[in-house]
Amino acid sequence: MSSHFLGNSVKLDNVYIASSGTTCGPLEFFGPLGSYFDKGYDDYHCGEKSFEKAERKMLREALDICLKREQLKLKDIDLYMGGDLLNQITTVNYLAREIPQPFIGIYGACSSFALSMAISSLLIEAGYVDKIVTLVSSHNATAERQYRYPVEYGVQKKATTTFTATGAVATLLTNQKTSVRVESITLGKVIDYNQNDPNDMGRAMAPAAYDTIITHFKDLKRSFKDYDLVVTGDLSTYGHKILKTMMQQNKIDVVHYDDCGCMLYDVHKQEVFQGGSGCACSALVTMGYLYPLLKEKKYKRILVVATGALLSPMLSAQKETIPCVAHAVSLEVVE
Amino acid sequence: MSSHFLGNSVKLDNVYIASSGTTCGPLEFFGPLGSYFDKGYDDYHCGEKSFEKAERKMLREALDICLKREQLKLKDIDLYMGGDLLNQITTVNYLAREIPQPFIGIYGACSSFALSMAISSLLIEAGYVDKIVTLVSSHNATAERQYRYPVEYGVQKKATTTFTATGAVATLLTNQKTSVRVESITLGKVIDYNQNDPNDMGRAMAPAAYDTIITHFKDLKRSFKDYDLVVTGDLSTYGHKILKTMMQQNKIDVVHYDDCGCMLYDVHKQEVFQGGSGCACSALVTMGYLYPLLKEKKYKRILVVATGALLSPMLSAQKETIPCVAHAVSLEVVE
Repeated sequence: MSSHFLGNSVKLDNVYIASSGTTCGPLEFFGPLGSYFDKGYDDYHCGEKSFEKAERKMLREALDICLKREQLKLKDIDLYMGGDLLNQITTVNYLAREIPQPFIGIYGACSSFALSMAISSLLIEAGYVDKIVTLVSSHNATAERQYRYPVEYGVQKKATTTFTATGAVATLLTNQKTSVRVESITLGKVIDYNQNDPNDMGRAMAPAAYDTIITHFKDLKRSFKDYDLVVTGDLSTYGHKILKTMMQQNKIDVVHYDDCGCMLYDVHKQEVFQGGSGCACSALVTMGYLYPLLKEKKYKRILVVATGALLSPMLSAQKETIPCVAHAVSLEVVE
Repeated sequence: MSSHFLGNSVKLDNVYIASSGTTCGPLEFFGPLGSYFDKGYDDYHCGEKSFEKAERKMLREALDICLKREQLKLKDIDLYMGGDLLNQITTVNYLAREIPQPFIGIYGACSSFALSMAISSLLIEAGYVDKIVTLVSSHNATAERQYRYPVEYGVQKKATTTFTATGAVATLLTNQKTSVRVESITLGKVIDYNQNDPNDMGRAMAPAAYDTIITHFKDLKRSFKDYDLVVTGDLSTYGHKILKTMMQQNKIDVVHYDDCGCMLYDVHKQEVFQGGSGCACSALVTMGYLYPLLKEKKYKRILVVATGALLSPMLSAQKETIPCVAHAVSLEVVE
């Protein structure tokens, strides 16, 4: 970005988190962070006839919870922005029919949470709007059906696979002071390390996460030590190790680092292979678990680096390698 | 949006169009506007082995032409933003692997041109970046294969169908003064008029175009008369008529109005059913044909209202109606 800003990053002064709503599916609900989410379902249908409708219902509920906390109605929000994993970002676009305000659809695969938070923060900081709600969701059964096979087929999975989280998150950003703010953002480059196995996305995404973290640190003259916690989106156990190794090879001291894909589940007890992925993964961990810890001042500043594998199943079938991206948002307690 | 701005619109002071690149396929090349495009192909493969690769090649060429005109390199641009019609916005995301700068993926179906121009304009106006290139593309054979059937099947089409344009457009926006500027933008709401026929998208999108135009006029206290030309994205002959009727029923005087889907082809002679659609449709007509007319001062101010049918084929199969959206950008000669 331009020289009067900071490389690919922007420091912000006037963007605050006012509220959030989190809904999740069974494995997230019965996982280690389950008690932190606003609502959990013990099945994948959520009372709906299709998995797509179930995902949309969870997102609508997350939105309703988010707005109700601040006693706001749909029309009180200036702008909505969001994305999901389904072709034509189906969940957000079809939900947007119920929203009487402008809507911007974004697509960054599993990085959509940080991408929508970053763009929304820039629009609020600039003074264009007072209130934006970001919307992201993913659903294990809709994502499996679309990217791989219907779960009912029981197809054998590779050990390197991650498990798409089922959940939805709405986040209200505002220019009115609250106890937690978006302190800075870094927009990521699309990185391709010649990985072509769509069953091993943690490893494919690690270089993109590395690039965004390094760029963020360089732009803001920071290191891991400047954060109480740095979380990547969904690198899972394999990608998480690779990122650490890359950092160590470049003599960067890694402290306070974890991965949302490893935090959302008990990777040893729950059947999630290498851990969680999906738009809901980093969003649930951040807004359900970490945001309350910031409000309670248990953390002062955290960096959320949501990662996305931008692969198209069709292009994977055409033997193309996988483009990956990571976008970062820094969240900070307001003193 | 917030009260200190103008409803859902923003007036801009510092956003200029510096360059563009336009590439197209055979029907666009041999159509009435063919001579205005930078490069045209007489086949759909463009020398590549797959239609997806052909679409990406056209977009890369549009980008190269756009940058070369201003003697810029890829890394001279602060930020890239774009979208296309393919699942996982494949064309832009896979092209972004070649781009060493941050990338934002957006999805607004055929409205992606105006959506990426609008968000980019807001980021430049706010001073975050100096130069953004927006990227959009569509390809008849990739879109048909994904949304309907491979063209090789020769499936009978309904008369209400539109023809997805083959082409790609790169546009360079900057804060440095040029002869044409982005004067204002209006972000659209997602509108659903209970239309469920994916073969009749012109009619489905007309209410969204109506809403955005009316909102734009209301926000900026304008009418059709304040523009030398108002173009909708791709309503085609049917949707175009419906929009006019809706305006007339609400006693709004319609002058200087046309539709990019009707302008890109000779609807009577070329086999395009009701006219053109696709991300490339409004982008080719605007940047290939109208932008030079603005530079030559044949128009002083035009309004481009790109329309998008946000339908998912899967949700159409589940009998859901079609969400539609339209985003508007006003382009003006700099005196």
